[in-house]
Amino acid sequence: MSKEFCIQLRVYYEDTDAGGIVYHANYLKFCERARSEFIRSLGVSQAEMLRQGRGFVVAKMQLRFKKPARLDDLLTVSCRVSRLRHVAIAFDQEVRAPDGTVLFELNCDIGYIDFNTGALLEIPADMAGRLKDYYQGQED
Amino acid sequence: MSKEFCIQLRVYYEDTDAGGIVYHANYLKFCERARSEFIRSLGVSQAEMLRQGRGFVVAKMQLRFKKPARLDDLLTVSCRVSRLRHVAIAFDQEVRAPDGTVLFELNCDIGYIDFNTGALLEIPADMAGRLKDYYQGQED
Amino acid sequence: MSKEFCIQLRVYYEDTDAGGIVYHANYLKFCERARSEFIRSLGVSQAEMLRQGRGFVVAKMQLRFKKPARLDDLLTVSCRVSRLRHVAIAFDQEVRAPDGTVLFELNCDIGYIDFNTGALLEIPADMAGRLKDYYQGQED
Amino acid sequence: MSKEFCIQLRVYYEDTDAGGIVYHANYLKFCERARSEFIRSLGVSQAEMLRQGRGFVVAKMQLRFKKPARLDDLLTVSCRVSRLRHVAIAFDQEVRAPDGTVLFELNCDIGYIDFNTGALLEIPADMAGRLKDYYQGQED
Repeated sequence: MSKEFCIQLRVYYEDTDAGGIVYHANYLKFCERARSEFIRSLGVSQAEMLRQGRGFVVAKMQLRFKKPARLDDLLTVSCRVSRLRHVAIAFDQEVRAPDGTVLFELNCDIGYIDFNTGALLEIPADMAGRLKDYYQGQED
Repeated sequence: MSKEFCIQLRVYYEDTDAGGIVYHANYLKFCERARSEFIRSLGVSQAEMLRQGRGFVVAKMQLRFKKPARLDDLLTVSCRVSRLRHVAIAFDQEVRAPDGTVLFELNCDIGYIDFNTGALLEIPADMAGRLKDYYQGQED
Repeated sequence: MSKEFCIQLRVYYEDTDAGGIVYHANYLKFCERARSEFIRSLGVSQAEMLRQGRGFVVAKMQLRFKKPARLDDLLTVSCRVSRLRHVAIAFDQEVRAPDGTVLFELNCDIGYIDFNTGALLEIPADMAGRLKDYYQGQED
Repeated sequence: MSKEFCIQLRVYYEDTDAGGIVYHANYLKFCERARSEFIRSLGVSQAEMLRQGRGFVVAKMQLRFKKPARLDDLLTVSCRVSRLRHVAIAFDQEVRAPDGTVLFELNCDIGYIDFNTGALLEIPADMAGRLKDYYQGQED
């Protein structure tokens, strides 16, 4: 089993909607922030990738909304590598309340592309290596 | 098979990200606009529901990103009722390019709740009736 | 006085916040949609500009929030050229309710830049010409 | 002169647009996060206000965009009380790069309203007191 990487974030007015709860699409933003910080923690720069016209894109996602988050909530967003292939990384993610209640679950498949051509590229070797270390290092 | 309801929308700078493509979470906004216009077309007012502290929330979603949309693209967003139950409606949705290419697919389960308590409610009878007519009326 | 260009748009859940009203920053999105459609109506393609690494950016804005818009409201967003210079265009914009009540006012100065270097460029001659025709053609 | 309150935040893909820079409306989100954390630091709960159907709204804003922020930038967002009245608070805010360069400036007037009626209310006494202490305590 892979280790969990987590960030914390606060719910602001910008994240909510007129129902008084977090707007559903914004959980995807929260999860992308966690993936971005996870990638940064590996020493990989998405800004540098972007200057080369490359970056990660989402291929598939499964979302389960279990309980709504509200204004001012302090949320934990987790990120786990669940599968690693040459052209795709799969993540399992959760958004949790301070008491550990799971509010939202996400499984996603991420690819790496050339933004100009849309062509699918192999995950860069150095990043794949760091992910592999991370992932294998966490095997039970 | 149920009839398809469609809206058209334009991609603006607000919808894109630094990769030069539509930011992944924004496809959920596009699909929610189509569901909102579909509900409005049934003569059901979400604003009136909201004044009673009630509304629709997403329970589950499956997303497939097939091809990126870009600035200025004119997109068609479709909406089909795929299942109808007392406490949930399932929709199949697509985002398509002008030439009909499917860029994004969504399956979602929508529930109806009391925003203050979070309690799951039955779909209002008049709306269920209109959806049923719509859905049955479209059977092959 | 210059002629007014207008678009209509609907307020969706994505536009609102937990106060039950349109989130303040989203009026800037509404106004940018109107400016984008105005530019398109002149026969100028922002997507083509972007492929050349160029585009419009905001330099200054003045915002006045007069009355809140709410879910399902059908809004009119206007756009008027208030000043035209070599390196900047000024717009006066309003967001209005169906009865004509002004909900939001914006004055903005827009520049044209190279996105890679950040350098300020002259407004493209063909666009300046069309804006001038538009602007002068509307003089009282 | 009043003391400056600051937060730090990271620029994610969600904040950028196809020009490769932070989308202009998102600076308003950044500034609202800083005001929210400032209000929280005073011991005032916006979530509690919201449960009573009340909250802050923006009345006026002046924005100056000086230099664009980009993906992965670590930004400092400042917040200073520039005027304090019974029914309005004025803030001066800046968004700054790590080297201190000012990227964005905002002056805004904030009011306090009943979200249901839209009626303007006096700033709650306990909050006004804390703001006054804060503001006066910082006089030169």
